Amino acid sequence: MSAAIDFQAKLTIGIVTVSDRASRGEYVDAGGPAIEDYLREVLDEPFETLCRMVPDEVEVIASALIELVDQADCRLVVTTGGTGPAVRDVTPDATEMVCEKLLPGFGERMRQVSLQYVPTAILSRQTAGVRSRSLLINLPGQPKAISQCLDGVFAAIPYAIELISGRFLQTNQKRFVAFRPKSTK
Amino acid sequence: MSAAIDFQAKLTIGIVTVSDRASRGEYVDAGGPAIEDYLREVLDEPFETLCRMVPDEVEVIASALIELVDQADCRLVVTTGGTGPAVRDVTPDATEMVCEKLLPGFGERMRQVSLQYVPTAILSRQTAGVRSRSLLINLPGQPKAISQCLDGVFAAIPYAIELISGRFLQTNQKRFVAFRPKSTK
Amino acid sequence: MSAAIDFQAKLTIGIVTVSDRASRGEYVDAGGPAIEDYLREVLDEPFETLCRMVPDEVEVIASALIELVDQADCRLVVTTGGTGPAVRDVTPDATEMVCEKLLPGFGERMRQVSLQYVPTAILSRQTAGVRSRSLLINLPGQPKAISQCLDGVFAAIPYAIELISGRFLQTNQKRFVAFRPKSTK
Repeated sequence: MSAAIDFQAKLTIGIVTVSDRASRGEYVDAGGPAIEDYLREVLDEPFETLCRMVPDEVEVIASALIELVDQADCRLVVTTGGTGPAVRDVTPDATEMVCEKLLPGFGERMRQVSLQYVPTAILSRQTAGVRSRSLLINLPGQPKAISQCLDGVFAAIPYAIELISGRFLQTNQKRFVAFRPKSTK
Repeated sequence: MSAAIDFQAKLTIGIVTVSDRASRGEYVDAGGPAIEDYLREVLDEPFETLCRMVPDEVEVIASALIELVDQADCRLVVTTGGTGPAVRDVTPDATEMVCEKLLPGFGERMRQVSLQYVPTAILSRQTAGVRSRSLLINLPGQPKAISQCLDGVFAAIPYAIELISGRFLQTNQKRFVAFRPKSTK
Repeated sequence: MSAAIDFQAKLTIGIVTVSDRASRGEYVDAGGPAIEDYLREVLDEPFETLCRMVPDEVEVIASALIELVDQADCRLVVTTGGTGPAVRDVTPDATEMVCEKLLPGFGERMRQVSLQYVPTAILSRQTAGVRSRSLLINLPGQPKAISQCLDGVFAAIPYAIELISGRFLQTNQKRFVAFRPKSTK
């Protein structure tokens, strides 16, 4: 697999900021840039990000996710915001709608990691799943919480993308050793 | 939000005891009173409880939950009993039926806390969710297990109710510091 | 319940190996034998195992599970393999299809235990549930991971089977103390 890297298509990652206020321009999105910064630090290959800014509407979020997977062929799509229990928080619902497989271990792990910082971590409904050959992950809205969550799950992301799509991700070994089991069966 | 508290309607909390035997009068319910005692200890404002006693029937449990949320306008509804794997244990199913949003972090956290006491904690199917402006939480049947579970999640409950309904809960700071993030977005 | 053991029907346990390669004979199944060895070590009564080998096809897996529960009357059915995020990994989906009740605590606990060994544990979608009077549990494919997962949940299995079916399991007390609460209500 490592030999194939030169011939791989350039990696494209979708970042969807879900926020009524940010999408109306009343608020400067901090989540999207925080995710991009994090990825630039942990990935050791060039990649392109496609950023979308949508209101807290389940159909609009779902459309953005579908477009980024089906048209833009992103191998990874992350959302920020809309994961709480309030009536307008529907990002996980949109994610479940568009995924063929859910990966409950991501939400469990991210809540558990966040619980080390705030007891309200249990209120997060964040999830993750697979659509076609893409991995979709819900992250919180706050930059600090985004880093905490990604620190908790990133080591599994390169191998997940490899299992889903065959795409090998080159990671910054100083920052994160991407774990890959020696044998998958 | 804190300024509004004097003008808030009196807090009403629903407690649903789910037990075939207790609902036939063959058994004195210990779970309901244990929940009420716990809440009197951790909440620092007057509140009314509406108690219901129902058999382990999914439709009957669901009706009780709906009545307490839709008619009685309870901000919090807790159940006790019926969360195990046996054929008559259907409280989580009734809860899922009536909730618009599920909050998987509650069940995860309560199982994890209970696991410190008994390895059979993993058999509990307890969940939590949101219906309209109410928070619904499944608790076990045994008073000791009820306390353990509430100790594990209570710090997040006041903020959850605030996010769902705008209702600020006054808590007993000596017993529990209700966590509220400084900024929600 | 303990008095009834002499009159109980012999315990039958189903083991379903889910693997395209193993079912085509291209690969010698290691998961099924590892599960059988484990059970022989922890159970202290004679039991029969019924082993099935199926490809990663959701309908074929579901049929095997149904047959082992409905026809063969297995009190416990465990699967090995097919729990990951890849497109052919559908064992949890088949399990959810045939179960009347899901027991999310098993998956949570098994992922948590596995996470002590590999960060990619969060990619497992393994679950457990109840169909009729049987307990169904998904295990990973690798023998080492099977042992780790069973070590994490076995203490709760005898009591689960007792609650579901009334069948008391005799366990090897030197290896595992099967936990049974003193009072169930």
